[in-house]
Amino acid sequence: MIYKFADRSSKIEPSVIREILKMSSDPNMISFSAGSPAPQAFPVEKITEITAKVMQESPILALQYNVTEGYAPLRAQLKEMMKTRYNQGKDFDDLIITTGAQQAIDLTAKILLNKGDNVICENPSFLGSLNSFKAFESNLIGIDIESDGINTLELENALKTTENVKFIYVIPNYQNPTGVTMSLEKRKKVYQLAQKYDTLILEDNPYGDLNFTGETIPTIKSLDTDCRVIYCGSFSKTLSPGLRLGFAFASNEITNRMTIAKQSNDVHTPMLNQLICHEFLNQIDFDEHIKNLCEIYSKKANLMLSQVQESLDKRIKYTVPTGGLFMWCTLPDGCDGLAFQKEAIKRGVATVPGVAFSTDNKKGLTSFRMNFSTPTDENIIKGIKILSEIKF
Amino acid sequence: MIYKFADRSSKIEPSVIREILKMSSDPNMISFSAGSPAPQAFPVEKITEITAKVMQESPILALQYNVTEGYAPLRAQLKEMMKTRYNQGKDFDDLIITTGAQQAIDLTAKILLNKGDNVICENPSFLGSLNSFKAFESNLIGIDIESDGINTLELENALKTTENVKFIYVIPNYQNPTGVTMSLEKRKKVYQLAQKYDTLILEDNPYGDLNFTGETIPTIKSLDTDCRVIYCGSFSKTLSPGLRLGFAFASNEITNRMTIAKQSNDVHTPMLNQLICHEFLNQIDFDEHIKNLCEIYSKKANLMLSQVQESLDKRIKYTVPTGGLFMWCTLPDGCDGLAFQKEAIKRGVATVPGVAFSTDNKKGLTSFRMNFSTPTDENIIKGIKILSEIKF
Repeated sequence: MIYKFADRSSKIEPSVIREILKMSSDPNMISFSAGSPAPQAFPVEKITEITAKVMQESPILALQYNVTEGYAPLRAQLKEMMKTRYNQGKDFDDLIITTGAQQAIDLTAKILLNKGDNVICENPSFLGSLNSFKAFESNLIGIDIESDGINTLELENALKTTENVKFIYVIPNYQNPTGVTMSLEKRKKVYQLAQKYDTLILEDNPYGDLNFTGETIPTIKSLDTDCRVIYCGSFSKTLSPGLRLGFAFASNEITNRMTIAKQSNDVHTPMLNQLICHEFLNQIDFDEHIKNLCEIYSKKANLMLSQVQESLDKRIKYTVPTGGLFMWCTLPDGCDGLAFQKEAIKRGVATVPGVAFSTDNKKGLTSFRMNFSTPTDENIIKGIKILSEIKF
Repeated sequence: MIYKFADRSSKIEPSVIREILKMSSDPNMISFSAGSPAPQAFPVEKITEITAKVMQESPILALQYNVTEGYAPLRAQLKEMMKTRYNQGKDFDDLIITTGAQQAIDLTAKILLNKGDNVICENPSFLGSLNSFKAFESNLIGIDIESDGINTLELENALKTTENVKFIYVIPNYQNPTGVTMSLEKRKKVYQLAQKYDTLILEDNPYGDLNFTGETIPTIKSLDTDCRVIYCGSFSKTLSPGLRLGFAFASNEITNRMTIAKQSNDVHTPMLNQLICHEFLNQIDFDEHIKNLCEIYSKKANLMLSQVQESLDKRIKYTVPTGGLFMWCTLPDGCDGLAFQKEAIKRGVATVPGVAFSTDNKKGLTSFRMNFSTPTDENIIKGIKILSEIKF
């Protein structure tokens, strides 16, 4: 039969990242295209031990249904963490556990976006989130991102001239894909503008803990005095992405709506996974754990950076990673970025086309994103060497 | 600030089931309200052993990102199972792993429903699915369910008089909430009507394996010659609901759309959970496992049935469970069903109001659903005794 799909369905393009991940599964390909954490950063022994303990002590809890908002002790633990570690949260804030931070983004879109509503995003931005916003048939308004974060003049202009902006979506720390971190000044400005034009902010912070410099900048959520910021956190980079654990931290009016919306998404986040996370946070020194992760990631970042500085064509501009998982490289204006990347794949190195992260399919045509956390050191050296040999 | 939520958000009512589950968590309450499998039916030892094996042998696979459509060996295994165990599936069919069957239902709604489209459902039907359809702003058209399944005359009438019916949603085996099983004749008729009026069928089969009589009726999917049936399966009742594992089995054009839609829902279903399921299916004799489950469940069902027959007011009608998890009880016309249930809760027994499953908030006002799988034998006896003492 011939199917009549929903309008939204045709609007969601296949995630280029997912497609490239598939392509990259060719074991001979050097993949700089993933957004995956470093496998050697997974606390395998600890998780193995904890999983056995959970199955030994609480098998029925791990295997039975539970409430949609998440396992109560884990929620309490994370709420406490919001205060003590991130210095954020007011009495009005509550927390819902989600099946990865992607679901927190998706639930935000589900409860807020009517067809034709507007969402302001950094341009370029994380494809997975842009696809969630598109799936609920909103319009994306992309604002350029500079070395210290979103262009706030452009942002104000967009807010001034656009009706029904439901929220501003930002990744303030080590932004995906550019690696840029938003300055404190700009975080304050974004919050002020959201107040002035009475809109919400969706603050996505999957990479904040992967901080190579030790310098931390307060979250926008920590500035929130009037229930305006929905903060999304993830355990994909600090524990494991395969367990699919994230959360949203926002006013209880919002988390209540999210809970109702999540009921019909997947009922609740898997219990075994929530119990593992809860026990993990109970057992480890989280600061120490993060410190170890940062050592692994900053070594990788520095290796890729040194190789880029040493051998990549000097006309290619790049961001210097101070945290997170990515470097963002840009060929000179007028160069064909996609041709460069196709040639790279032909020679065995996969990167992600910058245009995949564009809100308008225009930005990032000469750029590509490189991930330094997944490839081996040897492959980082080899891969950058291959890229440096491509003529453009 | 004052929030402007999406229209769909206000349309999703809090799931009465979830709310009642919370209420039922009062340890002194005898709960007939859950839809949870019997804890003693969980293969705890096996899962514990398998989980340890998975973490021992494939920790990185269990903890890293993977592709959206699901772990390839598990998908292959389930496709094979569709053929051998359920005798269904053509060359055009493919399979996507979902985070519980609820997500398979939700993805169906996401890829098919525009605002104002129509979905035909059995009335009453499973609340979680109805909420998914409502969340995508469709209209529900409820068709009465009889002792041998949906009223096919009413169904044809609805199909004849309604535009844009995107699909017919049915639970042919041990329907939730009524416990009714659709006859083969009606299954054929539903399929013929879907062909005649060129619409899809969403066949939800979470309870099919929990068969107390040994008599099995072919699925509607097994009759599917023209890619018209989306079949949803679940491991919530045969393995564990807390692991959140389900799947959709449909034409590859549909599963491809679902895969794209799932990317922005939760990227992929947790890998540890998929690996546990894969290894479980590898290791056990599934037929034998199901046979054991059915023994547990049919004993429980027979106990509740005997208590109902013995002590419940003869004016209360009930369905005789031949599988699944539920009995459906109906007070005489004109009685106040909700008052009966409130009195029951006051006396310490929770059931689910029939109207919660209604497509129109009218059907089921005198009915309630009772679950026999979760309560202990002692509580089944005690609970039915309490219900039998309520005046109405």
